[in-house]
Amino acid sequence: MSFNEISGGVTAPQGFLAGSIYCGVKANNPDRPDLALIYSPQRTAAAATFTTNRVKAAPVRVSQLNVRSPDVRAIIANSGNANACTGLRGIETAKRMTCAVARVLELKERQVLVCSTGRIGVPLPIEKLEAAIVQGFPVALSRQGGGHVAKAIMTSDTFPKEIAVEFEIDGHSVRIGGVAKGAGMIDPNMATMLSFLTTDVAIEKALLQRALSVAVEHSFNRITVDGDMSTNDTVILLANGLAGNKPLRPSSSGLKHFQRALEQVTQNLARMIVEDGEGVTKFVEVCVNRAANYSDARKIAEAVAKSCLVKCAWFGGDPNWGRIMDAIGYSGAKVREELIDIYYDGVIAVKGGMASRTPFAKLQELVSTPCFTVTIELHLGAGEYRVLTTDLSTEYVKLNTGE
Amino acid sequence: MSFNEISGGVTAPQGFLAGSIYCGVKANNPDRPDLALIYSPQRTAAAATFTTNRVKAAPVRVSQLNVRSPDVRAIIANSGNANACTGLRGIETAKRMTCAVARVLELKERQVLVCSTGRIGVPLPIEKLEAAIVQGFPVALSRQGGGHVAKAIMTSDTFPKEIAVEFEIDGHSVRIGGVAKGAGMIDPNMATMLSFLTTDVAIEKALLQRALSVAVEHSFNRITVDGDMSTNDTVILLANGLAGNKPLRPSSSGLKHFQRALEQVTQNLARMIVEDGEGVTKFVEVCVNRAANYSDARKIAEAVAKSCLVKCAWFGGDPNWGRIMDAIGYSGAKVREELIDIYYDGVIAVKGGMASRTPFAKLQELVSTPCFTVTIELHLGAGEYRVLTTDLSTEYVKLNTGE
Repeated sequence: MSFNEISGGVTAPQGFLAGSIYCGVKANNPDRPDLALIYSPQRTAAAATFTTNRVKAAPVRVSQLNVRSPDVRAIIANSGNANACTGLRGIETAKRMTCAVARVLELKERQVLVCSTGRIGVPLPIEKLEAAIVQGFPVALSRQGGGHVAKAIMTSDTFPKEIAVEFEIDGHSVRIGGVAKGAGMIDPNMATMLSFLTTDVAIEKALLQRALSVAVEHSFNRITVDGDMSTNDTVILLANGLAGNKPLRPSSSGLKHFQRALEQVTQNLARMIVEDGEGVTKFVEVCVNRAANYSDARKIAEAVAKSCLVKCAWFGGDPNWGRIMDAIGYSGAKVREELIDIYYDGVIAVKGGMASRTPFAKLQELVSTPCFTVTIELHLGAGEYRVLTTDLSTEYVKLNTGE
Repeated sequence: MSFNEISGGVTAPQGFLAGSIYCGVKANNPDRPDLALIYSPQRTAAAATFTTNRVKAAPVRVSQLNVRSPDVRAIIANSGNANACTGLRGIETAKRMTCAVARVLELKERQVLVCSTGRIGVPLPIEKLEAAIVQGFPVALSRQGGGHVAKAIMTSDTFPKEIAVEFEIDGHSVRIGGVAKGAGMIDPNMATMLSFLTTDVAIEKALLQRALSVAVEHSFNRITVDGDMSTNDTVILLANGLAGNKPLRPSSSGLKHFQRALEQVTQNLARMIVEDGEGVTKFVEVCVNRAANYSDARKIAEAVAKSCLVKCAWFGGDPNWGRIMDAIGYSGAKVREELIDIYYDGVIAVKGGMASRTPFAKLQELVSTPCFTVTIELHLGAGEYRVLTTDLSTEYVKLNTGE
């Protein structure tokens, strides 16, 4: 079973159009588009997952409602302003964005999903947005627009994030495309991260939602940069059925194949988000094995992946495993200190809760590489969990001391 | 009711002796004492609270056992090495420290408590320690040694932390003295923080323990610098009864008076620890009011006080209340976004979940001062909580990138 990586991002699957324009939200950068639109002229099944933050941005509230529609056709997204903590006026603004798109594309308002990312608490200049949508998008949309979407949703991202794959189901060529943005406020359960996914597979809405939820759990929910979960996180998947396969059925091999391809897409995008974390110099996978159970494995992986002290040590190339032991200890998981082993890239650093015989210089060498794995063995049960994380650099602090 | 602040630290109360020596744990700094001893020739009641980290340093395990003794007489503490993650050999080392002290002072081993602070995972040079204890302490102990203890337990602390107060109970003059060390790994439920407290009040052991637990809950458990809870945290309180008061009784006014004085001491020491947090430039009190309940108030206060993004914004003098709203939202507490008010030093920044009319420049001015309060009003119930925290500076990261 193989998935060919292809170009085109969200417009790689058949039928999808996309484009971007500049509408003036990012007032200081008129050359950089700040508004993106993805459009399906065909009927789609739509699925989505949203932030679990209890302070939710207005567009999240509107999209949570509209995604229930049996025939979603478009996603409108702006960068530069999160439309969060903007009260009823913010909700009205998000709705006006969906209305403007509906007017241009001759859709119903509830067939349009809306996303925003950027600074919190500042009203969106809705008149500018409406004018730009109405004038700009009839021209800007195209079958080659995927890359434009990837660029228009960037905030502090340093590179656009997109991917598409192609594979076969029952003799039909199927494609999945995706874009994402991340950079700051990245934490398990998503963050100021947006990801839009498109596919031409034929699949029923409830099944699509299940596939997306699993894929998100195995990708975007497994990354952390700074432990701050955003008010705006959204992942949306649209499926238009143009691949011509028989609709995927539960437990079928076709569905499994689709699931794996979808996870390849979401995991690649998640990895790009971490690699582009603000001020990141190290990219670290934390693997927890043989914890008492799944929940404990997760607690330990997340405590280590979020520890300021552990992340500072990594930034300095210091294999300070004592700080890892410390984080394991306060994670809340069951641990037996004397059973804990810790490895850097497979080289043992801690054996039975104490320093191993590996020379310090060897560990230092491993932690000085830009990308390594920390494996923690608890020897208590069958619980496993993995998280992708980063170091904490002086550059991160500088980038976040004001905008 | 008033408490006079007096000098003398842990040797201010009648009867206590203390001193410090250099034993060679801090190999790179022979001029700085690294071993401290507090001694009571009189019988004492002892109380203590320890880290809740499941990875506990060897001295914590030994002291947890010995504090049950009905007549604790001494506390031995070294800096420069935490004796944590050192296995059975570490336990043996901690015990040998208590034995050496018992030999010098003619005590039983279980009358001696032991503490260590410093790097994790490195064996202590116990022979050096034993030799230093046996040779040095008979000379070093004195009724003026409080200040020496405060200095000897410092690690990355930039100033010694001690205080003593005097007050009256039933016509008897009572004193409480204390020292502390902190600086890194500071988090609610304590951190690599040690604090030793002495008093000459007469009080029964169980009552003393209750008083200490409450005082710690209202002070050391309310501070956070980096969110990392250490393996070594310990607070010890010894009471020798020399003040001559009738032993304090439950619910008596004398006990209440003692409790208040004790909290004045622990809160002052906790504040010094935060003020001396690694690389700290801002000192912030987060007050949560009218949360649904106490537990929710605590969740919100701690989420805000630990958020990397919030702390970075403060470092930059940026009143980025959106990040505070974000942290409130992911704290896990019940919130109604549209009811949230946020104040900087009493000046409203967020009204009903949205930007207030306070000019940005005014808020910027408040957040640019070295010390301010953030008050969060939830308008849901009677839950209140307060935490002392700091900003997150580039200097913090630099200080923690290797030792």
